[in-house]
Amino acid sequence: MRNDLPETPWRLAARTARMNASAIREILKLAERPGTLSLAGGLPSAATFPVEAVREATARVLRDAPREALQYAASEGFAPLREWVATRMAGHGLDVDASNVLITTGSQQGLDLVAKVLIDPGSPVAVESPTYLGALQAFVAYEPRFVAVACDDRGPIPEAIADVGGARFLYVLANFQNPSGRSIDAPRRAALARAAAAAGVPIVEDNPYGELWYDTPPPAPIASHWSEGTVYLGSFSKVLAPGLRLGYVIAPPAVFARLVHAKQAADLHTPVFNQRVVHEVVKDGFLDAHVPTIRARYRAQRDAMAAALSSHLPTSGPLACRWQTPAGGMFFWVELPEGVDSELLLAKAIERGVAFVPGAPFFAGTPRRNAMRLSFVTLEPAAIERGVAAIAAALAELHDDAAAPPVAAAGGRR
Amino acid sequence: MRNDLPETPWRLAARTARMNASAIREILKLAERPGTLSLAGGLPSAATFPVEAVREATARVLRDAPREALQYAASEGFAPLREWVATRMAGHGLDVDASNVLITTGSQQGLDLVAKVLIDPGSPVAVESPTYLGALQAFVAYEPRFVAVACDDRGPIPEAIADVGGARFLYVLANFQNPSGRSIDAPRRAALARAAAAAGVPIVEDNPYGELWYDTPPPAPIASHWSEGTVYLGSFSKVLAPGLRLGYVIAPPAVFARLVHAKQAADLHTPVFNQRVVHEVVKDGFLDAHVPTIRARYRAQRDAMAAALSSHLPTSGPLACRWQTPAGGMFFWVELPEGVDSELLLAKAIERGVAFVPGAPFFAGTPRRNAMRLSFVTLEPAAIERGVAAIAAALAELHDDAAAPPVAAAGGRR
Repeated sequence: MRNDLPETPWRLAARTARMNASAIREILKLAERPGTLSLAGGLPSAATFPVEAVREATARVLRDAPREALQYAASEGFAPLREWVATRMAGHGLDVDASNVLITTGSQQGLDLVAKVLIDPGSPVAVESPTYLGALQAFVAYEPRFVAVACDDRGPIPEAIADVGGARFLYVLANFQNPSGRSIDAPRRAALARAAAAAGVPIVEDNPYGELWYDTPPPAPIASHWSEGTVYLGSFSKVLAPGLRLGYVIAPPAVFARLVHAKQAADLHTPVFNQRVVHEVVKDGFLDAHVPTIRARYRAQRDAMAAALSSHLPTSGPLACRWQTPAGGMFFWVELPEGVDSELLLAKAIERGVAFVPGAPFFAGTPRRNAMRLSFVTLEPAAIERGVAAIAAALAELHDDAAAPPVAAAGGRR
Repeated sequence: MRNDLPETPWRLAARTARMNASAIREILKLAERPGTLSLAGGLPSAATFPVEAVREATARVLRDAPREALQYAASEGFAPLREWVATRMAGHGLDVDASNVLITTGSQQGLDLVAKVLIDPGSPVAVESPTYLGALQAFVAYEPRFVAVACDDRGPIPEAIADVGGARFLYVLANFQNPSGRSIDAPRRAALARAAAAAGVPIVEDNPYGELWYDTPPPAPIASHWSEGTVYLGSFSKVLAPGLRLGYVIAPPAVFARLVHAKQAADLHTPVFNQRVVHEVVKDGFLDAHVPTIRARYRAQRDAMAAALSSHLPTSGPLACRWQTPAGGMFFWVELPEGVDSELLLAKAIERGVAFVPGAPFFAGTPRRNAMRLSFVTLEPAAIERGVAAIAAALAELHDDAAAPPVAAAGGRR
């Protein structure tokens, strides 16, 4: 029967060759198996979701403005929510007019719109290495040429910006970077902005994790040092709930107008029901009381992971691992010994009922295979301890396997 | 001070030159002025929104599955909603497996994702002429070359499909087309599918209005005649409420997988809160009782517009207009006399407190300037009557202006 069908009439766009299923999403499927401890996804703890506040806000919206909440609305977003974002950003050291705030369907959409408006096929786009996988996914659909900007432990090196001159933009996560956990300090932010302005390289500053600080609040955004050259992305996913899919982009006027055109073409507007509910939740200062409870939970989980890593992973000898405790965010980035392939380690860990994300997909260029990203936001401290212990056991097992001559080797080459 | 700033560092993607603000959205801003009667936007009547059902469904979702409704979720969509769509489509003559249903953030996003996956710069894309403006907007971001397929009163002409061979797809609205109101009958659908399969031209069938029939239900979709060669788009905007931004795409497996990759990159997933609420609303047959109430309302409004057009617009003489009464949907398409520019007419109509959409933006190629689209879904019958009367008066005034020699002409040629 199948032979009677005509050949497929579909011809795919060239860009699809570079667009693949997210490696993380595939691993998350494994991690969803019952009984698996997941250190893989950046899934916020559902215990932090403000269910009661959402319930009350929803009831108020559907009582006071049901028709408006269910009708088509402005592409730019719900005006009072745009105003709220502008006011909130002022509190974080970024002077913004509400007219420069675009509400997006999660900050992932902000990445897509920015790429649509700024990337031509072959355009150089500068990224940290490693960097956020979801951004690489969004950008790759527009067929850029990625160039890695040189970094040290404080972030991209200002003197290296000139090396990526001509880039359509430099994509950077200044706070508790995904996956490395690294933050950029205040002097480095100012120096980066100066260097980027001098080199004519605009900045796309992504800040999903800025509110998740556990020691001291982060410094003012890079955008505060060069507002006309920076597009800034924020999100409600980590401070309220990701299932509502609400984020925002702050852009200088020339770029803003183009982003609105792209937004209209992409989905007309973000669900106004969701925008009104979230505005209703946040408008009277809810986050000021709520976010500290999230911080307290994640701080304890971060500390539990730091303790577990110190207890279970070797820091010297042939299996020596290296990591730094992040000052915020959701992830530890662990560098494994040279020669250890974290994808092989993942397979062993899955057998032991633990999932994490291997490091390779976070690199736009040559991947580093001996690294892994561990999330501490999804599990409670006791489960984090068990998960890390299992990974350490898997690492030891992988090492033993490699040390022992494979049985089949006696049979000769194959 | 401004002179001290460096020149803008932003370099825009080439595609932005073709991406403009939607003409309709700009007109809608005029139409929002207090006191203006709008026949412009395709804004569903807010009186049709099932506020009570949404309120109850939201309360149930936030009671029974609050954590799941607020957490990250699958890119493909909420499985029970995908199942519901598949079952519903079976009732409309399209045999679909739920695994081929992708939930989107409004059907506008479906258009964007399809274009992202199928259009390379310069790819020919075949469209009806006129066609849905929002689709042109979505597609244009991927820089296609539009080719118009020849049409008659029954839709695209099957014999003309060979003329657009090589097109990445033919985009078609089979039911109550926006803007023309035209529908494609059952024999023509079958013939189109055969001709498209023979020419190797896949079809993208957009069906936002199919449930809004006022005389008899539409025939089975074109996709039912050629499922492996057709991507089908549907929406909850017209049968529930647009502010929830929920649509869906049904695609054969080869294309489906690519659409999911594009979906992940675009916004990870459609808000699962909205998906669960809508599933809760529709799962027990709500639409079977609800949609007939929408039909009854819009049928009366359509009839009011048909009567008003017959009363007020000339059908003979120098100002003769032509239109057909649509069997469903939201719009009348009125052909104005040769030489009448509907944008000039709009300016006159706005002075009289009425807005509509001129015809030109609906054409991918050479625009027809002497046509206008009138929506009958937003206003009640009495307001529709007043609006049409005002447009007729504006048309007469425009004609008088053209007939009278301009005063300045006495001063000589300029």
